[in-house]
Amino acid sequence: MRATVIYGAGDVRVENVPDAALREPTDAVVRVLRSCICGSDLWPYSSRPASDHPDRIGHEFLGVVEETGSAVSGLRKGDVVVAPFVWADNTCDFCREGLQTSCRHGGSWGRNGVDGGQGEAVRVPQAQGTLVKLPVAADSALLPSLLTLSDVFPTGHHCAVTAGVGPRTTVTVIGDGAVGLSAVLAAKRLGAERIILMGRHKDRTDLGREFGATDVVAARGEEGIAAVRELTGGDGTHTVLECVGLEDAITTAFGVVRNGGTVSRVGAPQYPAVPAGFGVFLRNITLTGGVAPARAYIEELLPEILDGRIQPGKVFDRTVSLADVPSGYQAMAGREALKVIIES
Amino acid sequence: MRATVIYGAGDVRVENVPDAALREPTDAVVRVLRSCICGSDLWPYSSRPASDHPDRIGHEFLGVVEETGSAVSGLRKGDVVVAPFVWADNTCDFCREGLQTSCRHGGSWGRNGVDGGQGEAVRVPQAQGTLVKLPVAADSALLPSLLTLSDVFPTGHHCAVTAGVGPRTTVTVIGDGAVGLSAVLAAKRLGAERIILMGRHKDRTDLGREFGATDVVAARGEEGIAAVRELTGGDGTHTVLECVGLEDAITTAFGVVRNGGTVSRVGAPQYPAVPAGFGVFLRNITLTGGVAPARAYIEELLPEILDGRIQPGKVFDRTVSLADVPSGYQAMAGREALKVIIES
Repeated sequence: MRATVIYGAGDVRVENVPDAALREPTDAVVRVLRSCICGSDLWPYSSRPASDHPDRIGHEFLGVVEETGSAVSGLRKGDVVVAPFVWADNTCDFCREGLQTSCRHGGSWGRNGVDGGQGEAVRVPQAQGTLVKLPVAADSALLPSLLTLSDVFPTGHHCAVTAGVGPRTTVTVIGDGAVGLSAVLAAKRLGAERIILMGRHKDRTDLGREFGATDVVAARGEEGIAAVRELTGGDGTHTVLECVGLEDAITTAFGVVRNGGTVSRVGAPQYPAVPAGFGVFLRNITLTGGVAPARAYIEELLPEILDGRIQPGKVFDRTVSLADVPSGYQAMAGREALKVIIES
Repeated sequence: MRATVIYGAGDVRVENVPDAALREPTDAVVRVLRSCICGSDLWPYSSRPASDHPDRIGHEFLGVVEETGSAVSGLRKGDVVVAPFVWADNTCDFCREGLQTSCRHGGSWGRNGVDGGQGEAVRVPQAQGTLVKLPVAADSALLPSLLTLSDVFPTGHHCAVTAGVGPRTTVTVIGDGAVGLSAVLAAKRLGAERIILMGRHKDRTDLGREFGATDVVAARGEEGIAAVRELTGGDGTHTVLECVGLEDAITTAFGVVRNGGTVSRVGAPQYPAVPAGFGVFLRNITLTGGVAPARAYIEELLPEILDGRIQPGKVFDRTVSLADVPSGYQAMAGREALKVIIES
């Protein structure tokens, strides 16, 4: 079958790989209908050392069950399913606590003999715990929004939930990428009173306003902090959703959070340590968030996508075929595309 | 009147200072019955640059109301009162949220013309909001435990509360100083299932066991982390109460916390940044805590001290007169005393 591999920075190719096939009785094989490129895929795309031994890549996909192992129940050939961005048994203590990213029998896509999501098919370990059946046809117009349940929308949701967003909460979202915009949508859905979006790409912040942002701040750094403080009577917001992962972003987060408030981060940290010393301590700021256990949230978020109340799939602004995945990476890395969806 | 001042590292003196007297209608004057030396007083005692202009010092005291300003109600001459370790109006939005350390009209003892606590008397700004009346006589045997309501016991309690300690929570407490031991007592009081105390001074950890510690780990660093993990089936504990403030301690905290768990810190950070990069992010660890709003907790903690169910005053193991405060600093800095109480 064909699948995407990465040889090094800037070098993504679509190549022949071994066909996805059952290995364990807990496996299923899923033919991919849609997958996509994640902001986090751009980290290896910008920095992976070149090598003759490529890695598989991609961790967001939905598709049709082709085959199930003997220990898999509740799924059968033909079911349309979505996969969260790690696989997990969904029965261990961590999974029961909603932390499937720490599953005792789980793991990541594209590693240790497991297929990546950006390909024709995927062997899904722990299929019964991992996959969520979607009550739609394989040609549903909802597929893009349903695909966001793999990662990007639950990631924004995780950020808002761990931050404690609710009615009467003021929120700053840092970053106008697909995760930041998803965090805006999640905060709005949770009832946030005010949502200030920090971002400087007008087309993206316009979608942010559509998703629920009440204010947009284009300035960055000290100037951006001052702007958010001015909008909030000098205090900053109760919660800050940090959706970038760069040191500047987390520094800004502590600058715009209200005393006693919470910074939640879902941008994969590209910094070794958090600038949260004595000054942050005096202000009683909480830092939370982390890699999102998407699986924990799918059942909660699914109904509103099915009935059209929310359309998180609007973050996709470019569609490519599997063969054209390399151009999709180029477009996202060059900021020509917000988020690229792949039609397999 | 006599009061303690600090001229520089290692140079604490008891000197004549202007008598405490009303300045604002919201003030009260309190004659100090008991005060004490805080672990945080040892930071300037170890590092303050020498100067001819000393600072007043001390932020934990209880005493008898001598005089009240015209705008103070609910307090009168002769009332025994305890002061939390910052003064605050207790009516602003931050105070109503329980964050009196960020009061819009509050401040610290010993600064900007406000007296320090280690003296004969104190002018108390925002007295009505700051002081809590204690239903005891000025010679009550409960004074040491009641004095801990100023700071050390609510600080341990704040650490446990912000960490989310409750029944079925496992807890690691880092540090066997007075704050760490108070955190043990607070965690026990909140119903923690298991409390592992990391400390290596047997007399202190023995008091920790009396306060509720179920296990003691004397090892530090990597060895200490391994010991806590071994006690917890490899996982670490749900919560970690970091009661030291040194970089080693916060690093250990992330090492012993269970995935999805919470590190709460109340040790004043002596580090510029928190070692919580990508690895901590993948584990969904929350960092919380901060300087404790003691005022928010006094009413909750008081009844159990009054009826003898808890005795947080056991952290005091040395008593000095006001004149002997310098020897008290020496004893605490030299680790000969756990915590020193001052009889004025």
